[in-house]
Amino acid sequence: MSEHSPLDLAEGDPFGPHNLPYGVFTTADEPERRRLGVRIGGYVLDAGAAAHALGSPYATLLAQPSLNPLLAAGRTAWRDVRRALTAWVTVPAHRADIEPLLHPLDAVTLHLPYEVADYVDFYASEHHATNVGRMFRPDGDALTPNWKHLPIGYHGRAGTVVVSGTDVVRPSGQRKAPTDAAPVFGPSVKLDIEAEVGFLVGTPSELGRPVALGDFQEHVFGLTLLNDWSARDIQAWEYVPLGPFLGKSFQTSVSAWVTPLEALDAARTAPPARDFPLLPYLDDAAAEEPGGFDVRITVEINGEAVAEPPFSTMYWTAAQQLAHMTVNGASLRTGDLYGSGTVSGPEVGQRGSLLELTWNGRDAIELAGGKRTFLEDGDEVVLTAWAPGPDGTRVGLGEVRGRIVPSA
Amino acid sequence: MSEHSPLDLAEGDPFGPHNLPYGVFTTADEPERRRLGVRIGGYVLDAGAAAHALGSPYATLLAQPSLNPLLAAGRTAWRDVRRALTAWVTVPAHRADIEPLLHPLDAVTLHLPYEVADYVDFYASEHHATNVGRMFRPDGDALTPNWKHLPIGYHGRAGTVVVSGTDVVRPSGQRKAPTDAAPVFGPSVKLDIEAEVGFLVGTPSELGRPVALGDFQEHVFGLTLLNDWSARDIQAWEYVPLGPFLGKSFQTSVSAWVTPLEALDAARTAPPARDFPLLPYLDDAAAEEPGGFDVRITVEINGEAVAEPPFSTMYWTAAQQLAHMTVNGASLRTGDLYGSGTVSGPEVGQRGSLLELTWNGRDAIELAGGKRTFLEDGDEVVLTAWAPGPDGTRVGLGEVRGRIVPSA
Repeated sequence: MSEHSPLDLAEGDPFGPHNLPYGVFTTADEPERRRLGVRIGGYVLDAGAAAHALGSPYATLLAQPSLNPLLAAGRTAWRDVRRALTAWVTVPAHRADIEPLLHPLDAVTLHLPYEVADYVDFYASEHHATNVGRMFRPDGDALTPNWKHLPIGYHGRAGTVVVSGTDVVRPSGQRKAPTDAAPVFGPSVKLDIEAEVGFLVGTPSELGRPVALGDFQEHVFGLTLLNDWSARDIQAWEYVPLGPFLGKSFQTSVSAWVTPLEALDAARTAPPARDFPLLPYLDDAAAEEPGGFDVRITVEINGEAVAEPPFSTMYWTAAQQLAHMTVNGASLRTGDLYGSGTVSGPEVGQRGSLLELTWNGRDAIELAGGKRTFLEDGDEVVLTAWAPGPDGTRVGLGEVRGRIVPSA
Repeated sequence: MSEHSPLDLAEGDPFGPHNLPYGVFTTADEPERRRLGVRIGGYVLDAGAAAHALGSPYATLLAQPSLNPLLAAGRTAWRDVRRALTAWVTVPAHRADIEPLLHPLDAVTLHLPYEVADYVDFYASEHHATNVGRMFRPDGDALTPNWKHLPIGYHGRAGTVVVSGTDVVRPSGQRKAPTDAAPVFGPSVKLDIEAEVGFLVGTPSELGRPVALGDFQEHVFGLTLLNDWSARDIQAWEYVPLGPFLGKSFQTSVSAWVTPLEALDAARTAPPARDFPLLPYLDDAAAEEPGGFDVRITVEINGEAVAEPPFSTMYWTAAQQLAHMTVNGASLRTGDLYGSGTVSGPEVGQRGSLLELTWNGRDAIELAGGKRTFLEDGDEVVLTAWAPGPDGTRVGLGEVRGRIVPSA
């Protein structure tokens, strides 16, 4: 065994061989050649080169500039490739072949690892929806009458989903305070985050054929953290009656790493008890596996933790969202991405948006660098997360980082 | 000159050399080989083969299985290719080369001619929005306060945009009448159409950089008819607060033919007078060219005309919609498609949806085959349209056809 091998990970490394998320990277000497990589500790393994070196039958699937071919290959291939990768990074006999194919993370550039087909965003946290309802409909019920009968969702802009690290240009648009006679135009003054978990579809489905609740794992490849940047002032003026549009469509940031579903088997957890009986296509009471995931998110602004949203508290599960999204016969494509909606827990410190943390700007939060209601130019937001892995390990999700730059 | 040449068109043919829309076709003997075609009369010209035969510099751009490379090539290329095509089908010296490359329309299969990137749907007819507002918000103002300040829009599902001729599987979903205690699940009982004009983006734009009103023609390649099938019962229960989702996402049908913007120069028309001053990024009072298009749509159900929606009456123009869609910095991609929203004129017979034609099912319309409120299984809907062309000609838009089949 070599000394100081990149494969000798520190005890408790959340990117150990129990995780193995996928990404796409380039190196400085070949900036045009995108390659599939797998993260192990602080390194990325060139997956195509490894498959070639070890004579793997998956060499073609892994020697690709994007994750999409693997996504499209289906669940059996996902499982077999993961099994092979696990062997490559854990079996001592492979070390000599694998070690030269490991690149330190700080020596590579990470790219959006898949082409997004359709992007859908849900609204699945009861705490988030209740907070928003209280703020914007103070005289009505906090939740709309449909909320506990179906996972509310809407389509977002797939073309502006970007990889972690991409700057966020402050969006301009119309806003109108209730007391203003007419709307004004300018850079958003209520630029916000939404801490979410995203689900990436691999296996497509046929037009006209709903996907059953129990087929979630046949279609969904893995998870990503997701920040659905939101301009609250633009959104408030535009969203009645057809929903959010420009208040959201300027940018959505996702992790550079996609964590395979299989890595999260130990993080499965039961969703909250349901207040209403669900229609059969959404009823998960008898599901083989609990539909929730115990993913623990941390939101940092300029290096300071401001919230710890617990994904386990989401009312609607990702499997229910998939079943709902297709129950009308809408087909899935490889690369479809759907966000959970803002993750907010019952406690104040568990809220996944500044809208909720500052109660729409009423209560500023104190940061070392000064007070904040919404984001200022130059602010950097980082989402990180982990989930319980096998045998007491932690499974890290790839971070989502973004810095606000002034309006063009 | 050959006798009975396919290039000798009948007087007034709306698909004459002044039109030349683009499509993608296959022939029975080579069902896997998709080819770019240009419609002339009742024929489709194999554009790649023609370019090759005539030694055109555009042979590579036209010998493609999809319109996307031409879309991405930009306005100068669009103009030059169109000029070349016009010469090929009009200059007698080319006849001998061109005629063998013409396939009768009924001998080919037409396909969706481009890959849709993002799909956005607007809500730009004042008459339609007023009718809907009166039906669903009888106690409030028909138009929401934002309606005349910005073109309201939302993202739809790009993956379920299909070519004319594709059957429509009746969607199932939740619905709840106000008097019901809980939602019920089943096939939609209010399946409807929305007659629209779609605009197809060719030239992409950069993230963070709005597209100005005056740059419409640099980015938009052409037009298509569009039927945004809608399940009114599903939509009514789901759409508050985040907008339409499953009530729309099951299918959107578009023409097999894309009409280049240039073919519609003579159809340009001024939009209606604006009731409010518009913010500068939307203000088209000083625009070089009027932003409207005089496209005259006919809606047929089972062969019987039920409405003639006039696109010239739309309050918001396609250029304003493009400027609005990008004003927050959202980027455009080649293949982005946006619908105008239902086209309804001021007269009852000009309404582009059954929702309006039957006033949400209250007033059935009489067809030869029986009364209709919403669509029945087996019904076939066809949208056709034409616009004024140069010198008194008519420019035909490709039809959009769809037949309702029962829920799976």
